[in-house]
Amino acid sequence: MGYQRLTADNAVALFVDHQTGLCNGVHDQGMLEFLNGVTALAELARSFELPTIVTTSAADGPNGPVLPALASLLPQAQVIHRPGEINAWDNQEFVAAVRRSGRKKLIVAGVSTDVCLAFAALGARADGYEVYAVIDASGTWNPLVREVALARMVQAGVTPITWVAVGAELMGDWRSPHAASHGEMMSRHLPFHGNLVASFDAARGAG
Amino acid sequence: MGYQRLTADNAVALFVDHQTGLCNGVHDQGMLEFLNGVTALAELARSFELPTIVTTSAADGPNGPVLPALASLLPQAQVIHRPGEINAWDNQEFVAAVRRSGRKKLIVAGVSTDVCLAFAALGARADGYEVYAVIDASGTWNPLVREVALARMVQAGVTPITWVAVGAELMGDWRSPHAASHGEMMSRHLPFHGNLVASFDAARGAG
Amino acid sequence: MGYQRLTADNAVALFVDHQTGLCNGVHDQGMLEFLNGVTALAELARSFELPTIVTTSAADGPNGPVLPALASLLPQAQVIHRPGEINAWDNQEFVAAVRRSGRKKLIVAGVSTDVCLAFAALGARADGYEVYAVIDASGTWNPLVREVALARMVQAGVTPITWVAVGAELMGDWRSPHAASHGEMMSRHLPFHGNLVASFDAARGAG
Amino acid sequence: MGYQRLTADNAVALFVDHQTGLCNGVHDQGMLEFLNGVTALAELARSFELPTIVTTSAADGPNGPVLPALASLLPQAQVIHRPGEINAWDNQEFVAAVRRSGRKKLIVAGVSTDVCLAFAALGARADGYEVYAVIDASGTWNPLVREVALARMVQAGVTPITWVAVGAELMGDWRSPHAASHGEMMSRHLPFHGNLVASFDAARGAG
Amino acid sequence: MGYQRLTADNAVALFVDHQTGLCNGVHDQGMLEFLNGVTALAELARSFELPTIVTTSAADGPNGPVLPALASLLPQAQVIHRPGEINAWDNQEFVAAVRRSGRKKLIVAGVSTDVCLAFAALGARADGYEVYAVIDASGTWNPLVREVALARMVQAGVTPITWVAVGAELMGDWRSPHAASHGEMMSRHLPFHGNLVASFDAARGAG
Amino acid sequence: MGYQRLTADNAVALFVDHQTGLCNGVHDQGMLEFLNGVTALAELARSFELPTIVTTSAADGPNGPVLPALASLLPQAQVIHRPGEINAWDNQEFVAAVRRSGRKKLIVAGVSTDVCLAFAALGARADGYEVYAVIDASGTWNPLVREVALARMVQAGVTPITWVAVGAELMGDWRSPHAASHGEMMSRHLPFHGNLVASFDAARGAG
Amino acid sequence: MGYQRLTADNAVALFVDHQTGLCNGVHDQGMLEFLNGVTALAELARSFELPTIVTTSAADGPNGPVLPALASLLPQAQVIHRPGEINAWDNQEFVAAVRRSGRKKLIVAGVSTDVCLAFAALGARADGYEVYAVIDASGTWNPLVREVALARMVQAGVTPITWVAVGAELMGDWRSPHAASHGEMMSRHLPFHGNLVASFDAARGAG
Amino acid sequence: MGYQRLTADNAVALFVDHQTGLCNGVHDQGMLEFLNGVTALAELARSFELPTIVTTSAADGPNGPVLPALASLLPQAQVIHRPGEINAWDNQEFVAAVRRSGRKKLIVAGVSTDVCLAFAALGARADGYEVYAVIDASGTWNPLVREVALARMVQAGVTPITWVAVGAELMGDWRSPHAASHGEMMSRHLPFHGNLVASFDAARGAG
Repeated sequence: MGYQRLTADNAVALFVDHQTGLCNGVHDQGMLEFLNGVTALAELARSFELPTIVTTSAADGPNGPVLPALASLLPQAQVIHRPGEINAWDNQEFVAAVRRSGRKKLIVAGVSTDVCLAFAALGARADGYEVYAVIDASGTWNPLVREVALARMVQAGVTPITWVAVGAELMGDWRSPHAASHGEMMSRHLPFHGNLVASFDAARGAG
Repeated sequence: MGYQRLTADNAVALFVDHQTGLCNGVHDQGMLEFLNGVTALAELARSFELPTIVTTSAADGPNGPVLPALASLLPQAQVIHRPGEINAWDNQEFVAAVRRSGRKKLIVAGVSTDVCLAFAALGARADGYEVYAVIDASGTWNPLVREVALARMVQAGVTPITWVAVGAELMGDWRSPHAASHGEMMSRHLPFHGNLVASFDAARGAG
Repeated sequence: MGYQRLTADNAVALFVDHQTGLCNGVHDQGMLEFLNGVTALAELARSFELPTIVTTSAADGPNGPVLPALASLLPQAQVIHRPGEINAWDNQEFVAAVRRSGRKKLIVAGVSTDVCLAFAALGARADGYEVYAVIDASGTWNPLVREVALARMVQAGVTPITWVAVGAELMGDWRSPHAASHGEMMSRHLPFHGNLVASFDAARGAG
Repeated sequence: MGYQRLTADNAVALFVDHQTGLCNGVHDQGMLEFLNGVTALAELARSFELPTIVTTSAADGPNGPVLPALASLLPQAQVIHRPGEINAWDNQEFVAAVRRSGRKKLIVAGVSTDVCLAFAALGARADGYEVYAVIDASGTWNPLVREVALARMVQAGVTPITWVAVGAELMGDWRSPHAASHGEMMSRHLPFHGNLVASFDAARGAG
Repeated sequence: MGYQRLTADNAVALFVDHQTGLCNGVHDQGMLEFLNGVTALAELARSFELPTIVTTSAADGPNGPVLPALASLLPQAQVIHRPGEINAWDNQEFVAAVRRSGRKKLIVAGVSTDVCLAFAALGARADGYEVYAVIDASGTWNPLVREVALARMVQAGVTPITWVAVGAELMGDWRSPHAASHGEMMSRHLPFHGNLVASFDAARGAG
Repeated sequence: MGYQRLTADNAVALFVDHQTGLCNGVHDQGMLEFLNGVTALAELARSFELPTIVTTSAADGPNGPVLPALASLLPQAQVIHRPGEINAWDNQEFVAAVRRSGRKKLIVAGVSTDVCLAFAALGARADGYEVYAVIDASGTWNPLVREVALARMVQAGVTPITWVAVGAELMGDWRSPHAASHGEMMSRHLPFHGNLVASFDAARGAG
Repeated sequence: MGYQRLTADNAVALFVDHQTGLCNGVHDQGMLEFLNGVTALAELARSFELPTIVTTSAADGPNGPVLPALASLLPQAQVIHRPGEINAWDNQEFVAAVRRSGRKKLIVAGVSTDVCLAFAALGARADGYEVYAVIDASGTWNPLVREVALARMVQAGVTPITWVAVGAELMGDWRSPHAASHGEMMSRHLPFHGNLVASFDAARGAG
Repeated sequence: MGYQRLTADNAVALFVDHQTGLCNGVHDQGMLEFLNGVTALAELARSFELPTIVTTSAADGPNGPVLPALASLLPQAQVIHRPGEINAWDNQEFVAAVRRSGRKKLIVAGVSTDVCLAFAALGARADGYEVYAVIDASGTWNPLVREVALARMVQAGVTPITWVAVGAELMGDWRSPHAASHGEMMSRHLPFHGNLVASFDAARGAG
C-alpha cells in the first residue's frame, strides 16, 4: 500500500452543491469555520491550477446559486448544473469532465457531507478513483450526521482529509515556487499563523 | 466493491422496538431530533412503498406500544410482536418476512441502537444481507453507547447511514415522480429547507 | 416583591422577527428545538386567547416572510411590518398596540435573542412593563451570544422564562377548562409526555 | 445580610413531583446523576429528621407515582396529592403543612426545575420564606431550560444549592453525632469518596 | 463471518485492575456512570454464572484494593494479584486461568481503557481469542484517551461492546429463566427502565 | 432605569491589547470567531465614526504589535502604548483620551477578557461611566475564565453585549444613511446573512 | 461603588482543603488545569508575600494531607487543621488568623467549590470582608455543581475571579520589581506565553 | 496478527515540528494537556534511552524554535532542521537517521496532527514500518481536524496510541529497573496518581 501524494499534476478538485441556500443548513461546524474551509480549498485549487469542477443542484430554486465567495475565487472552473441527479456521479457530464482531466485523485467537498459529498465519493471510489473527502470544506445538518457519513466513507475506502492537509500535500516543500502565496493564504485562513508572522517580523525588527 | 444504490425496488424497511416506553430512555439525541428521524424514515418507507416490517418486544408490558406517530404513518406495515427474542433476527417470523420481501438491502432502525438495532443488523449481515443502520432514526442511553455500537456495526460490515441519505438514495433524481412529495417531506423534517422554500417563493413574488 | 402569575387576562404575546431568512441563522439551539419552541408559544397564545402582536423587519427582503408555521397558528394576530426600526419598541404602532391591550405583562420572543428580543425587552422594561423573555422560543447566532444576551436582560430586570413555564403559569390548574387542549399540546411538543400518555393508556387497557 | 446556616432545626424539605413518568423526561443531567441527587437529598432529610413534604401532580395518571426509591426512603413524609394546582404553593394544604413546620428555610427540589421547582420556590420566596433550590436533585427537559430557570430563581432571591452543600450545612461539624452515617452516605453517593475510604483503610492496614 | 452470540456457556468475564485508587483517575465518564457499568457487568457475570477472573496490579500500594462493590458482587471469582506485569496477558497464571475456562469468548473490562483493558484485549486477540471490550465498564483519564484506545482495539479486531449489550446477548430471550432477575437488574442500572415498570404497574392497577 | 441606546454621538470605542502574541492565547472561542468579532467591531467604530482608542501593553515584546487587521481598519484611532500599567484605566493618558471624547458610554473589548477588558471596565464603571463589555470581540484562555469574568463584570454593573448588538443599537433604523454599508458589513461577518442576500437576489431575478 | 484593587498590602490568601484525597474528586476541570491553578495561586501568594493560611479537614484520614505541590510552595503559611468544622469560617483559630492579618480582602480557593470555598466565602462576606473566590484554583464534582456554587456566591456579593486576574491585580504595573518573576511564573503556567517569549527571543536573535 | 510490544530495544522516538510558534496554534486539546503529553513522551524516550530524532520546519522563522521544554529533556536527540520538506519522510536525512536506528517500530508525535504527524506516519507505514501515532503528544487546529486525521491514519494501518500506553508498553513490568523513575514520572504527569501516592504514604504512616 503505497502513499502517493496529492500533487498539482495528479489531482482534480470537485465542489458539489456549495449553494447559498443549502449552506445555511450547515450546523456541524460554525458558519465561519465552514466558509473558511470552502474558500481555502478553492484558493488551493486556483493556486495549484487544479482542474476544477463546480456542480449544482437546482440552482435556480431555493437551494440558491453557488456561494458568491466560491464563484469569484474560481472563475475558470467548469460549472455543471445538474438537471436532477442527486448524486453528481450519476451525471454523465460530470463524470466525463472528471475523466477528461485524466487524473485519478479526486479532491471532493460538498454540501451536505452525507449526501452530496458522500454519494459522489462513493460513486467515484466504486469506479476505481482515489477519493479524498475534504470534511472541513463540507458541511451538514448536525455533528451526528457528519460522524455517520465519515464512518460510511472510510468504510468504503474513501480517504478523509482536511483542507490544510490538502494544501500541505500539494505544496510538498517550502522551497516550491508556490511557497510565498501558500504562506500568505495560510496566514489568512489560519489566523494564528498570520499572528506568528506579524509577531516575528516585529521581533526581528527589534532584534 | 461496487456502490449499489438503495432504490424503491431493492430495499426493505425494518423498525425494531420503537415503543413508547423504550423511547423515553433515549438520551443520545434530543427527544425532538430522535422522533423527527423516526418519523422521517417512516414517511420514506411509505412514500417509496418499501415493504416494511415493524417488530416489538413485550409491547403489552412496560416497554409500551409502538410509537403512535410511527403506527399511524405505517398502517400497511406488517407488525410482528416477538414473544421473547431480544434479537429480532432470532425470530423466525421476522426473518421469514424479510426473506419474503425478496430484497437484499435492509434499512434498519431500532431502539436501542446497541441492542435492538445492532443485534438485528449483525444477524442479517452474517446471513449475507446488505444492512444499512439508520443511526439517527435509532436511539440509545447515552452518546458513548452509540459510539461503541456504531464502531461494532461498522467493524462487522454494516453500512452506517442517516435518514436524509436514505431518502436521497431512494429518490436518486429530482425529476422522479416522487420529487414533489419528497421535497415537501424534507421541508417539514429539515426546517431550514422549509424556510428556504418560503423565502424563495416570497422573493420570486417580489421579483 | 410579589410573585404575580401570568394569566390569560394579564398578558400579551409579542413575536419579533420570526422570519424565514433570519431563522436560518439560528445556531444556539438545534433547528427542531427552536421551531418547536416558537410554535408551542404560538399555540399557547392562541389557546389562551392572548392579545398577540407579530412584527417583522424588512419582510419583503432577504429576511423573508413570517415563518409559515407561526403565521398559520396566529391568523388573528396583529401584524406590524416595521418600516426600519430595529428595536420594535422604537416603533410607535407597536408600542401603541401593546398599550391598547391594557396589559402590563409582556411575553416576548424574538430572532435574534441579542437584538430583536433583547432590544424590545429592554425598551419595554424601561417603560415600566414586566417583561418575560422566552429564551427557547427565540434564537441567535451561537450559544455565547445567547449567554451574553441573557445576562444583559436579567441585569436589567427582565424575567427569563421558557415556553413550558409560560404555559404552566397560564394554565395554573389542571382543573381548568384549558386542561385537555393544553395536555394534548404538551404531548406534541414534549414527545416524552406523549409517550407517557400512550404507555399509560395501553397499560390501563391491560389492567 | 447575614449567612444563617441550614440546620436540622430550621429547615423543612420539600419534594415536588418526583414521579416516575415525569422523571423520564429529565434530560439536563444523566439519569444516574439525577436519581443520585434525589435519593441523596432524601437520605439527608431522613437522617437529619427534617420535616418533609412530598407532593404530586396527577399521580394516578401518566405522570406516574412517586419514585419508588424516594418513597421508600421517606416513609414518614407527609404526601400531598394536589388535585390540580401546577404550583404547589397554590395548594393550601401544602402551604399549611409548610407553615405548621414552623420553619422559615425551605429546601426544595422538583421535576421539572422550570415549573415544579421554580414555581414553588418563587411563591414561597414572595411570601417571605428563605428558599434553597436544590438544582441537582431536580431535573428538566434540557440544559438550556435549567439555565433559564436558574437565572429566574436567582433573580428573585432564591438561593441555588446542590445536595452536597445542603448536607454539609446540615452537618456543620464532623464531631456531630450524625458524622458516621453522613460519611457513609457520602461514600455511596460520591463514589470517589468511598474509594478514598477503602484505599485509606487498606493503606493503614499495610502501615 | 458468522455472528456467534455470547452465551452463558461460551464466555468468560475478566475484570482488570478495577482498584479504588486507579478508579479515582477515571475522567472519561462521570463517576456514577462508570461505577454503574462496572457493577452491572459484575452482576451479569454472577447471574449467568460466567467463569470470572479478577486481577489487580500492586493492590497493596497506592492503586488500592479491588473496588468493594465489585468484590462483594463476585465472591466466587478467582482473584489474581499480578506481581508486576502491566499487561495481564503477560501473566501466566491469568492466561492459564482463562485457558482452563475452556472458553474462547472473553468479556473484558479494565482500568484504564488504554492500558489495562487494551493490552489484555490485544494480547488475547493475538492468541486467537474473540475479545469483547466493555467500554462503559472501563474507564480512563479523559475522553480523547478512550477514543484513541477504542480505535486501536477495533483496528486489531477486538469487538467493542457495552454492558447492556453484553447482558442482552447473554439473555437472548425474555422467556429464559434468567428473565426476572435480569429485568430487575436492568431496572436498577438503567433507572428509566425502573420508572417504566413502576408506571406500568401503577397504571395497570388503575385500569 | 432608562434604556439609553448607544448612538454614533454618545459612545467611544476602546480596544485593549488586541496584540498578535496575546491573541494566540485566546481559547474561549475559535480563532475565526474571535477575529471576526474584533474586526466587525472595528468596522462599526470606523463606519459610525466613533472616537476610537487602541491601547497596547509591551507591544515591542512578546505580546506583539496590534493585530494587523485591526490596525488597518482603524488608521485614525489614537494609539496609546502603555508603559507598564496592566489596567488601562490606570494610565492617565488613556483616561484623559476617554474624557476628551466627552462621551459617557464606553464600548470596550480586550484581550484577555478577565484582565485587559475586565480591569478597564471595572475602573471606568467605578468612575461613573456606562460600560459595554463586548464579549465576543474579546478573548481569553478558556471558557471557564470567560464565564467568571463575565459574572464579575455583570455583578459590578458593567453591561455585557456582543458586536452584533452594538451595531444594531448604533444603526437603530434601516432607513439610516448607514444602512447600505451596515448591511454589507453584516453579510461579510455573519455569512448566513450574505447567503440570504445572494439567494434573494437570485430568486428575485427568477421571479 | 469604588473599584479597590487587590494589592500586596491589602490581601490575604486562604487555601481551604486542597488535600490529596479530596482533589481526586475534582471533575469540573481537567486534572492538570486544576493543579495548575492551585499552584499558580500559591506562587502568587509567595511572590507577593501575602499572609497565607492553609486549612485542612480531617487531614489524617481519607481526605489526605495537603497537596505536596502546595505545601512545598508555601512553607511559611500558617496551617490550621480544623478539628471538625466543615466551614472554615466556623473555626475560631482560622477567623482569628484572618483577623490578625489586618486585611479586609480575602483571596480564597477551596476544594470543593460548593462547600469548602463557598461556605468560607459566604461566612466571611457576611462578616463584612471583601471576598474574592478564585474559581479556577478551586474544584468540585462536576460542572453543574460549580455553576450553582458560582451563582450562589455572586448572589451573596462574593467577587468571582481567576488566578490570572488575581496576579494581574497584584502586579498592577509591569515596571514593578515583581515583574521579572511574575513574567516567568506566567510563562510556566500559561504555556502559550512561554512560547511567545521563546519565539520572540529567537526572532530577535535573527533580527 | 501478532501483538509485538513496544520495548526499549525495538522502538525509536520521532518528534516532528513541536515548535513554539506552531504549538500556539494547537486548539484540539487544552494548552496544558498538550504540553503535558509532549513532555511525558520526551521523558519516556529519555528514560528508556530510545534513539530519538527531533525535526523542525523553518525553525528560524515564525514557526519558532523547538519547545524549550522538549529541547531540555532531550539533549542527546538528533535534531534535523528540514530545509523545506513538509513531510519529514521526504527528507533523506530524517529517513536515513530512522534507518540507522535499526528499529522497525516508530513512535511518532507531531504538530500538526493532520500534517506533520500524519504525513510522516503515512510515509513510514508505506515503507513497511510499524508506526505508532501518539495522538495526545500531538496537536492541531481543532477537534474535527484531529478526528479526520485519526481516521485517515487508522485506515492506512497506523496504530493510534497515547503517551500513557507507550510508557506502559515500554515498562512492561513493575519489577523492571525502570519502575521507580517511571512511577515518579507518572505521578507528575497524571496528577491523580501523585495524589494516590501521597495519600497512601500518609495513611501508611498513620497505620
